[in-house]
Amino acid sequence: MPNFQAMPLEYRVRNPNFAAEVERVFYKAPFVRDLGFQLAGFEAGSCETSLMLQEKHLQQDGYVHAGVQATLADHTAGTAAATLLAEGQIILTAEFKINLLRAAKGEQLYCRAQVLKPGAKLIIAEAEVFCLSGHNPELVAKAMVTLAVVDQAKQ
Amino acid sequence: MPNFQAMPLEYRVRNPNFAAEVERVFYKAPFVRDLGFQLAGFEAGSCETSLMLQEKHLQQDGYVHAGVQATLADHTAGTAAATLLAEGQIILTAEFKINLLRAAKGEQLYCRAQVLKPGAKLIIAEAEVFCLSGHNPELVAKAMVTLAVVDQAKQ
Amino acid sequence: MPNFQAMPLEYRVRNPNFAAEVERVFYKAPFVRDLGFQLAGFEAGSCETSLMLQEKHLQQDGYVHAGVQATLADHTAGTAAATLLAEGQIILTAEFKINLLRAAKGEQLYCRAQVLKPGAKLIIAEAEVFCLSGHNPELVAKAMVTLAVVDQAKQ
Amino acid sequence: MPNFQAMPLEYRVRNPNFAAEVERVFYKAPFVRDLGFQLAGFEAGSCETSLMLQEKHLQQDGYVHAGVQATLADHTAGTAAATLLAEGQIILTAEFKINLLRAAKGEQLYCRAQVLKPGAKLIIAEAEVFCLSGHNPELVAKAMVTLAVVDQAKQ
Repeated sequence: MPNFQAMPLEYRVRNPNFAAEVERVFYKAPFVRDLGFQLAGFEAGSCETSLMLQEKHLQQDGYVHAGVQATLADHTAGTAAATLLAEGQIILTAEFKINLLRAAKGEQLYCRAQVLKPGAKLIIAEAEVFCLSGHNPELVAKAMVTLAVVDQAKQ
Repeated sequence: MPNFQAMPLEYRVRNPNFAAEVERVFYKAPFVRDLGFQLAGFEAGSCETSLMLQEKHLQQDGYVHAGVQATLADHTAGTAAATLLAEGQIILTAEFKINLLRAAKGEQLYCRAQVLKPGAKLIIAEAEVFCLSGHNPELVAKAMVTLAVVDQAKQ
Repeated sequence: MPNFQAMPLEYRVRNPNFAAEVERVFYKAPFVRDLGFQLAGFEAGSCETSLMLQEKHLQQDGYVHAGVQATLADHTAGTAAATLLAEGQIILTAEFKINLLRAAKGEQLYCRAQVLKPGAKLIIAEAEVFCLSGHNPELVAKAMVTLAVVDQAKQ
Repeated sequence: MPNFQAMPLEYRVRNPNFAAEVERVFYKAPFVRDLGFQLAGFEAGSCETSLMLQEKHLQQDGYVHAGVQATLADHTAGTAAATLLAEGQIILTAEFKINLLRAAKGEQLYCRAQVLKPGAKLIIAEAEVFCLSGHNPELVAKAMVTLAVVDQAKQ
């Protein structure tokens, strides 16, 4: 067995103004604003978000609804991918899969997403969702997201 | 090639009062009520739901957000699975995968889910999401959902 | 609830010689030949395959290995997608998800795949795997496959 | 944003002889032997495997077939899960999803899998597949696998 370390990914930035563009787009979707997602940080190829939990985000049993976690994972992965776009391109989710690992109960969700494959037409990212209760963050869900890069004009 | 037809699934009902129980549980989750899902119909092993679309369900470009479609697919699949529970059991989503097939724009989403594997511990269901614009329903997303059957007392 | 029927998909054939091309490509992969997959039939947007089961396809417990079912589902979905290609294009699997629904034991696997979204850059197909034991076919696995359309010259 | 580090998972070993059991089971499946998988290392909650590539593992274009990568990911994840079993339990794959990130060409595949959720009834693991060409390992695929824990007697 070779004792190797896979080389870290290098991300090529195509739009030098990507930071302004990512901030501009993050809160534009009404569903994202309605849920209350916050952009916590990002750089080329990755993104971090958070969500202060309210009653409306819950299931009947008081745990965070799978749909909330899935939406947060999808949006965070999409934003990580958006850091790598050229001007005039947008991201559309082609598909995602999410495993709900543990019942999520706490004050806040936190998500970090990283691009695994920065392709010209397809970007693959993974997103991890943590639930913070006091000082104990716990990994509650993990998603793999396939995102299509689309020229805005052609859409 | 054998010209066969796979035998239709037969679903075994474990709780004779499952209909009352499904109706009681469907609207209990705050997130489901907040989004506005409606229970349209169900029988053992399947379920149909709908959602009148509002501004808050949308992405920045006016299309229905992937998270809304995913949540509808998950909840409809979960309800289809819930028709097969014994008394005192509940359903938890273990994972799901959803393909967003087409941009969804219209007045209403409609979802139908069917159980593919009615297991004692795991139930697998698929859910199709349609978008209705006028009289033209279009398949906009399809999900596969793995649901865990949990004894409520043990949870 | 609108009593609707989603309109059946219409598939646009881009290469009038797609049948010859599909037959030419189906058996080209050494792994497909080694496993023994057979092309049972196809038309624009769909494909059927089969596999006579041998000892080498099995798990330790005598059931068909998940990897065999996954490979059959992937290859059948890829071939269904290939019916819709223009000349000079090829199909690459971007991702797939498969649910193993029941332990598969029998003489033969049979798979049918259908394109759900015939996109210009992405094709989404689902594939169902059946196991035939005597005259009783049983659905043993179901997969959703995302396939990228690639210009052969650019690869 | 809390600058947190999620706590590392602790795995509880239920069978003190798990190492002997894992080694005994790894090569039992005819499909695994036929493909040529090698057990490279394991400890509680994780596993590493490798595969020397041969012509029979390839697609028509000379790259490693997606089905080979999927089978390696599934088997490595299953073995990582098997380290956590009690005596008399076995692992069955309920479902998996794999993203093929890059075309895989080289001399060897290498896979490492880690359990993300060591549940009593469901174990969730992720598996990364690397392709080694000379000294440059590259992440070529990543899978999320849901595994059911089954009492052998009940199966």
